[in-house]
Amino acid sequence: MNIPTEKNLERVVIIGAGFSGLQVAKKLRRDKYQVVLIDKNNYHTFQPLLYQVATAGLEPDSIAHSIRNIIKKTKNFFFRLANVNFIDIKNQKIHTNIGDLFYNYLIISTGSITNYFGNKNIEFYAFPMKSIPEALNLRSLILQDFESALLVNNIEEKKRLMTFVIVGGGPTGVELAGAIAEMKKYVLPNDYPDLDHKCMNIYLLQASPRLLDGMSIESANQAYKNLKELGVTIWLDCLVKDYNGKIIFIENNKYIETANVIWTAGVKGAIINGFTEKDIKNNRLLVNNRLQTIAYKNVFAIGDVAYCIETNNIYPNGYPMTAPPAIQQGNYLVYNFNNLLINKKNIKPFRFKNLGSMATIGRNKAVCDFPFIKLKGFLAWIIWMFVHLVSLVGFRNRIIALTNWIIQYFHYNKSVRLIIRPFYRKKKSVNK
Amino acid sequence: MNIPTEKNLERVVIIGAGFSGLQVAKKLRRDKYQVVLIDKNNYHTFQPLLYQVATAGLEPDSIAHSIRNIIKKTKNFFFRLANVNFIDIKNQKIHTNIGDLFYNYLIISTGSITNYFGNKNIEFYAFPMKSIPEALNLRSLILQDFESALLVNNIEEKKRLMTFVIVGGGPTGVELAGAIAEMKKYVLPNDYPDLDHKCMNIYLLQASPRLLDGMSIESANQAYKNLKELGVTIWLDCLVKDYNGKIIFIENNKYIETANVIWTAGVKGAIINGFTEKDIKNNRLLVNNRLQTIAYKNVFAIGDVAYCIETNNIYPNGYPMTAPPAIQQGNYLVYNFNNLLINKKNIKPFRFKNLGSMATIGRNKAVCDFPFIKLKGFLAWIIWMFVHLVSLVGFRNRIIALTNWIIQYFHYNKSVRLIIRPFYRKKKSVNK
Repeated sequence: MNIPTEKNLERVVIIGAGFSGLQVAKKLRRDKYQVVLIDKNNYHTFQPLLYQVATAGLEPDSIAHSIRNIIKKTKNFFFRLANVNFIDIKNQKIHTNIGDLFYNYLIISTGSITNYFGNKNIEFYAFPMKSIPEALNLRSLILQDFESALLVNNIEEKKRLMTFVIVGGGPTGVELAGAIAEMKKYVLPNDYPDLDHKCMNIYLLQASPRLLDGMSIESANQAYKNLKELGVTIWLDCLVKDYNGKIIFIENNKYIETANVIWTAGVKGAIINGFTEKDIKNNRLLVNNRLQTIAYKNVFAIGDVAYCIETNNIYPNGYPMTAPPAIQQGNYLVYNFNNLLINKKNIKPFRFKNLGSMATIGRNKAVCDFPFIKLKGFLAWIIWMFVHLVSLVGFRNRIIALTNWIIQYFHYNKSVRLIIRPFYRKKKSVNK
Repeated sequence: MNIPTEKNLERVVIIGAGFSGLQVAKKLRRDKYQVVLIDKNNYHTFQPLLYQVATAGLEPDSIAHSIRNIIKKTKNFFFRLANVNFIDIKNQKIHTNIGDLFYNYLIISTGSITNYFGNKNIEFYAFPMKSIPEALNLRSLILQDFESALLVNNIEEKKRLMTFVIVGGGPTGVELAGAIAEMKKYVLPNDYPDLDHKCMNIYLLQASPRLLDGMSIESANQAYKNLKELGVTIWLDCLVKDYNGKIIFIENNKYIETANVIWTAGVKGAIINGFTEKDIKNNRLLVNNRLQTIAYKNVFAIGDVAYCIETNNIYPNGYPMTAPPAIQQGNYLVYNFNNLLINKKNIKPFRFKNLGSMATIGRNKAVCDFPFIKLKGFLAWIIWMFVHLVSLVGFRNRIIALTNWIIQYFHYNKSVRLIIRPFYRKKKSVNK
């Protein structure tokens, strides 16, 4: 892989430049370690705003940032664009499509992938939204469906093309449903005056009895109310059974005819080959409360991919697979590495500090749960925007995203309605 | 194609939403004609800035604008996203992938495509830059070449990956050469400190004895000087013979080893099937000085695709294939249509008013030829930016492009170094 071996420095290899991996790569001391960061993309993706790329609100350049630009010219740091095939843990070597690499320490921060719970039909026909190419594909799908619907006289077929079923009522599902409903409200009447907008239907299907499982019941109810007002049909306690590309089948003989199922119903850890059954729990890599994998003291896992055995048992299913635990875990590991505590006994265990969570439903509508207060409506929306804006990597991304949001706010519009890549009905063709 | 027939209105079909077609579609009076605009994309492309998309300066959303957004809700106007297969001129019908359509008047504004002058090897291995997907592909190519060069130890192979040969010294070739040279100067040292930037070479090959054939000799010399200063190797009087993907062969046994040939050496009219040899001249549709095709009084051609028989013989090879003649021809046709002059005798012939031309070479460097004055350097560069900015369609695109330019100016940087779509060495796979 063409990386020089430094005699006096141990090598830390980080796989994945998401929220957690990026923290570590940025902050590990180069005078104590040689740092190698590997990712399959040359950019970091700000996943919380992917739904805006999918719904023509932002271009990728606002929410993605070149990794080489984030971590500029520093000694003893190397970035490599590569796919990791498997890890030879015994020999401390990773095998990638651009060669092998020995590590002293390995940090796995590969994030998560869409979980279809074993249903191959849904995996084949439904659309995921976990990466920028997938979000761009979704954008093309929505816009091309409108174009196709114009050409169809059969009213059933027209409705099928204009029906969007979002499965999964977590933050992603709620935000996506709200954004598509706003496309119906603001974009459709202007761009497609000859399309009957009554043919467009948006469904949000949630398996549990409420939306936003990770948030308070007040926020869940508020999101439910706001989505209803935007015209979204919400089905709770609703288990999806199958989808054949035309009809989505739900328990109790219910079904919806639709050409568009968007799957935000689950994720699982993106586990690299080389681990065994006993290293894995709940589809994530099992780590102790120092974030070390159980069997290998020099292999760590952080972020979505890690299932941390937590001392307090507040999170019996593992920490939420969101940005805040990932960032905190990255920082925890950096501290331990930089202070050479990694193999010391009696170091403090990692503990997640929950600072709150939030979701936006649409224009002027959001919900925020903070430890001491719950907010909704315009104020929550402003806070949501502010938090997401300052979380974006890089001054330029913030300015471009903010400019887009301001223009859209005053124009009641989605700016980037461009079908640039051909969309793929069959997901296999999408580059991930 | 699902377009209603209006009893009292004749139907004008416009094929192509480039500079000329868009003028007509925007301005034709809907109370006098039913207007149908057809394009293979749902957006208008501002081609003069494509090279900035290719060199990581801008995202597509700055230079592309949704056609449905440009022409909002107007009566008797229809846009259709379609590929035209052929024109049945005898029966006044166009055949597309989404059905047939009868026309009373047909306006062909299909623009131009890359001309490889019959060389199939070059067509297969060289990269064109005439569309947004092609420009994005070029961006991925450049960035992925840098990533690949990092992994190579063989110095010849490293140089081959980092050598960029631009064929064609017109404005596109000059602007692209300058922008790639600036990537070498500003991006490479920061993003790829472990790459020897001396391995990167940029060549500009021009068949004629000077650059910028359409501009003054002073401007050509200035561009030559500026490119030299930026480290571009320029070969004039240089005829390319062949390219096999690894070596480009030039007359007199010269050759360059390179993995990257970018072809900006020629364009030809994008002529739709249905015309015969006698309708075509210089690879363009022959039109009289009223822009009517010679054989069919109700079929017009404007913009790059049209070869206009001009009264004054100032342009013996046809008007330049650039935006100004296209826009002026569009407006000329609009005037004649809206005033019902189309079939009147004694209407004024079209005459192109040349308001000047310009090209940018890089930061603070441009050349402008106006009828009464020639400019260069910083002032020319400011004028170039201003003219391009106000020519962009839509307030939002101007703001986003300007914001990007300002940030880049102060950061000495190219902002969007994201490899988002996989690039294709073999062009066949690129969506056009």
